Amino acid sequence: MKALITTVPFASINELPLELLKAAEIEYLINPLDKKLTEDELFNLVSDFDIIIAGTEPISQKVINNAPNLKLISRVGIGLDSVDLLIAKKNGIKVSYTPDAPAPAVAELTMGLIFSLLRSIHVASSQLHKGEWNRILGKRLSEITLGIIGVGRIGGRVIRRTKPFGSPRFLVNDIDPGKQSNMDFKLEWVSKQKIYEEADIVCVHLPLTRHTHNMITKKELMTMKKDAAIINVSRGGIINEKDLYEVLKSGHLIGAAIDVFENEPYSGKLIEIERCILTSHMGSMSIDCRSKMEIEATEEVVRYCSNQKLINEVPEAEYEVQRDRKNSI
Amino acid sequence: MKALITTVPFASINELPLELLKAAEIEYLINPLDKKLTEDELFNLVSDFDIIIAGTEPISQKVINNAPNLKLISRVGIGLDSVDLLIAKKNGIKVSYTPDAPAPAVAELTMGLIFSLLRSIHVASSQLHKGEWNRILGKRLSEITLGIIGVGRIGGRVIRRTKPFGSPRFLVNDIDPGKQSNMDFKLEWVSKQKIYEEADIVCVHLPLTRHTHNMITKKELMTMKKDAAIINVSRGGIINEKDLYEVLKSGHLIGAAIDVFENEPYSGKLIEIERCILTSHMGSMSIDCRSKMEIEATEEVVRYCSNQKLINEVPEAEYEVQRDRKNSI
Repeated sequence: MKALITTVPFASINELPLELLKAAEIEYLINPLDKKLTEDELFNLVSDFDIIIAGTEPISQKVINNAPNLKLISRVGIGLDSVDLLIAKKNGIKVSYTPDAPAPAVAELTMGLIFSLLRSIHVASSQLHKGEWNRILGKRLSEITLGIIGVGRIGGRVIRRTKPFGSPRFLVNDIDPGKQSNMDFKLEWVSKQKIYEEADIVCVHLPLTRHTHNMITKKELMTMKKDAAIINVSRGGIINEKDLYEVLKSGHLIGAAIDVFENEPYSGKLIEIERCILTSHMGSMSIDCRSKMEIEATEEVVRYCSNQKLINEVPEAEYEVQRDRKNSI
Repeated sequence: MKALITTVPFASINELPLELLKAAEIEYLINPLDKKLTEDELFNLVSDFDIIIAGTEPISQKVINNAPNLKLISRVGIGLDSVDLLIAKKNGIKVSYTPDAPAPAVAELTMGLIFSLLRSIHVASSQLHKGEWNRILGKRLSEITLGIIGVGRIGGRVIRRTKPFGSPRFLVNDIDPGKQSNMDFKLEWVSKQKIYEEADIVCVHLPLTRHTHNMITKKELMTMKKDAAIINVSRGGIINEKDLYEVLKSGHLIGAAIDVFENEPYSGKLIEIERCILTSHMGSMSIDCRSKMEIEATEEVVRYCSNQKLINEVPEAEYEVQRDRKNSI
């Protein structure tokens, strides 16, 4: 069996994933371009492999059709918008993922971004690095209304991590409002519109689907309060980047923190906006979570190669999401 | 009675402090220079006033000797290194302060700085604003050793706020090691030296005294781990700024976050260091805490003017600290 490891960095801190592959006598190639692959780059690499240990590069119909030996896609991470699940299924390719491992790291990054935005740490630091001393008055978490769109693995963790700070007023929204009913927090389940209108910080913790693509455009951003802020650490494309740029450029919103982009690496105009924190798809990038994701994805590969049952196969609901998308086109 | 309000901004969000002064028929002047006053600037302003509602500008012997009417110094904040308490006492001037009001805001800023340093949010954002996409691998709070020097109002709050993140290993030091013995956390009480050597992040939460001035120099910084970081949100001068600059410039330490400086506004060489977060003495700068500090300091002034007992007079221990300093010179 031959595995192509597309996600980078891989095993850079903990070499266990590579040791697992070696012990199972699985040949592997780590992404030789050392960057997120485009569809064409992946197309050119993939033809010889049985397995992909995948990042977020597009595993499209075109790619899959050029990989006649492909039997398993093991995603290092949770999002599946990059994989054409229906074509994979049609070609008898199994798909598994690591839905839980990244969550603590993504939630903790989100909390860091919330505090940076609340106190304008990034703005004060950027200005002082240019020699300007501005004492910026901010807010504490317990003083604000925090809007959470998507109360799943990440959103739920963010809510729980607010506790010792004195919890904010929570406005929350999820397609499954029963999901977090047993949480020990007072949550107001409201429309997305009410979140845009009333939250001081809006956090987006959603998968990218046809329903969430361009979910937040200029219209939604302009209904937010002038001194509110927005955070996206989930998937690029949910907040329209050009609209966010124009809204921030016009002076609306006190800040934003964007970790994920429609095209990565990102090279758009948001880099002009000092009060917009920009990070490089780093939600899961803590040593422990990243390592756990890589190990879990690799263990799944080893299971497949030794004819054991997979334990993190993508559930039917994820196929349903993509079927829904295709039907709508 | 005439009050000089030196700290700025003042009553910028909540006007209650000014209303309290007006209701008590206390005349006031807000710092006309709208910046932290130097000793000479304060000297030139102060001669006519009975009361100072003070920031951190130097209320030195020279200043006090030019203020023959001065009867009360009401500090908006906790630090007293800027006030010559012994000369004040000799001249019959009472001094009060607001020791508790700033603590929640300072602790929350500290947590924000910890998360920024752990995940290099500031570095990734600075680089992406220059067009460079670098996925930086960081750490979660529960993976690290957190060193806290000064386990008082702020340090204790920082410790408690780590709880839902999975607490780190704590190495702590305080001149009074019994202080936090009833905390519901496993704390290792160790020497400062051990904290420098083993902590991934060192947080300094101390007053500025002769014992803490230049407490952390190149020697201490170089005993820290190469990938450790240091935070100072207490008082400038505790970490030697030139030494910190040289150590960071040499490539040692993964980052630093400095909110307080020997001379403010700061204009030193740390601005050259991208991985050093620099904020503008913003520890207490949340709307609620700042407002509470201003109100408490003003209420003390109103009490004095209406012959009521002061409730936040500076305790004898603070005079003792300064007596100790003078004796050592």
